Amino acid sequence: MRIESYLKDKAELVHQALDDYTTQLEGIPSTLKEAMRYSLLAGGKRLRPVLVLATVEALGGDSHKALPFACAIEMIHTYSLIHDDLPAMDDDDVRRGKPTNHRVYGEAQAILAGDALLTEAFGLMAQGAKETGLSPDVALTLIAEGSRAAGAKGMVGGQVDDLLSENQQITLAELESIHQRKTGDLIAFSVRAGALVGGADEACLASLTHYAYRLGLAFQIQDDILDVVGDSQLIGKPVGSDEANHKATFPALIGLEKSRQRLLEMTDQAKNALIGHAGLNPERLLQIADYLLARDR
Amino acid sequence: MRIESYLKDKAELVHQALDDYTTQLEGIPSTLKEAMRYSLLAGGKRLRPVLVLATVEALGGDSHKALPFACAIEMIHTYSLIHDDLPAMDDDDVRRGKPTNHRVYGEAQAILAGDALLTEAFGLMAQGAKETGLSPDVALTLIAEGSRAAGAKGMVGGQVDDLLSENQQITLAELESIHQRKTGDLIAFSVRAGALVGGADEACLASLTHYAYRLGLAFQIQDDILDVVGDSQLIGKPVGSDEANHKATFPALIGLEKSRQRLLEMTDQAKNALIGHAGLNPERLLQIADYLLARDR
Repeated sequence: MRIESYLKDKAELVHQALDDYTTQLEGIPSTLKEAMRYSLLAGGKRLRPVLVLATVEALGGDSHKALPFACAIEMIHTYSLIHDDLPAMDDDDVRRGKPTNHRVYGEAQAILAGDALLTEAFGLMAQGAKETGLSPDVALTLIAEGSRAAGAKGMVGGQVDDLLSENQQITLAELESIHQRKTGDLIAFSVRAGALVGGADEACLASLTHYAYRLGLAFQIQDDILDVVGDSQLIGKPVGSDEANHKATFPALIGLEKSRQRLLEMTDQAKNALIGHAGLNPERLLQIADYLLARDR
Repeated sequence: MRIESYLKDKAELVHQALDDYTTQLEGIPSTLKEAMRYSLLAGGKRLRPVLVLATVEALGGDSHKALPFACAIEMIHTYSLIHDDLPAMDDDDVRRGKPTNHRVYGEAQAILAGDALLTEAFGLMAQGAKETGLSPDVALTLIAEGSRAAGAKGMVGGQVDDLLSENQQITLAELESIHQRKTGDLIAFSVRAGALVGGADEACLASLTHYAYRLGLAFQIQDDILDVVGDSQLIGKPVGSDEANHKATFPALIGLEKSRQRLLEMTDQAKNALIGHAGLNPERLLQIADYLLARDR
């Protein structure tokens, strides 16, 4: 199967699971359900859950046991987008080609929809582990790791520093530290969740983690590049929004040419990390790295 | 030991644990750490974590294993207060006698401090269970229940309906449904967490859950009464804020006299639920119900 079809299949599987899961949320206020589903089912690449599934499959593991974690991670990612877009944060009007959550439901409901998605994500991990028979020990490890990746040391901390760095001169190391936490940690958690469900040994887990962080950085560099040279129709938001928001970006800091070079380096390093592990068939993960490198959205 | 001293001891134990836990959060932005600690360590009654500990002790269980859950619940409660106080929600300036989080750190940081507290709470449950040797099965059950209590079906859903009911005529049943979800579910989860860690059997768990919901409702009725007749110095916020915010309250709906009557009924029902379970020494839980009934803050 071509990688495009593979990614599409997995994204559809995740979409369906998220649709089912939120449909089953009964007895909740209809506004809340609608606001949660509006952003959760708005599409997007589903990169994180696809990485969970591709990693567990690369290890020959049971992707059924990984699916709740894949969905939970997408819920966490979606909550972070809703909150990042709020007027008090980036004040964005458009996301994935549609009005942002708070533009449709108002600020209060958008904050609460984000809160609910984040809260439900941890419940889905715990409940999902019980239902699929995943080892409770592994499940607890994953919940602890997920909290760390999404929390103060990870994603939230990265967002705090991102906001504080607006209109400030920062170094390349500082920019990479922000991205490592703001997007890298959750991407790494996605791969690690697949790896732990798939039973990766220590060495393989370390290599997969390295792959994930390099991939995450490459992904962010490409995002920054597309914000300069991309097609706003394809990327679903106005080109030049980083500059308008006074965001530090790779092109702003080191120029487009060096950004492209660094993107290639990171992709190479990601791929090289996967070589030489018995029990790991890295084909899809390698293809994902190449696919992301070539993406235009 | 008198109940006042018992409650003070437990509240101090929880305060110290929360202080230690957030001190250990290394490598996070200092603004974020400060904003999280500002609200988390602002005092308050610590009702929820005290209920966790009192319940596990009433069952002769190991309160050491319950402490991470007690702290996590207080973190969830604190996040909900920070978000509820935001300009987009209740727009409150004072909480526990101090300026609200967003008045000190700004809206963006307050949203993120709340997000971080919520996220870290689930990590603390998972990590704490591993460190204290709590059964991973019980830990997963508690994480799933905690998510339900705090999420769309519970606290967040209650807050959504609370906001939607502003300036609306609602019935007593609707008001009680809002409070059951907005405060009752997390109070019930506190008692259930203590009960499950303490090894309560099914019947005892059901009775403790009944106690908790009645206690939670009594607590809310008393809150509403104090907002009318209380001393703003003691309650740490202006008297009459519910009326100013056009909130539906028990006194507004059924009058002060009937509210006091219902408060007594709920407290009686809470206490009666605890009678006659072998293995449960209900003394402290009964005292807590009486203590809350008589409180002036």
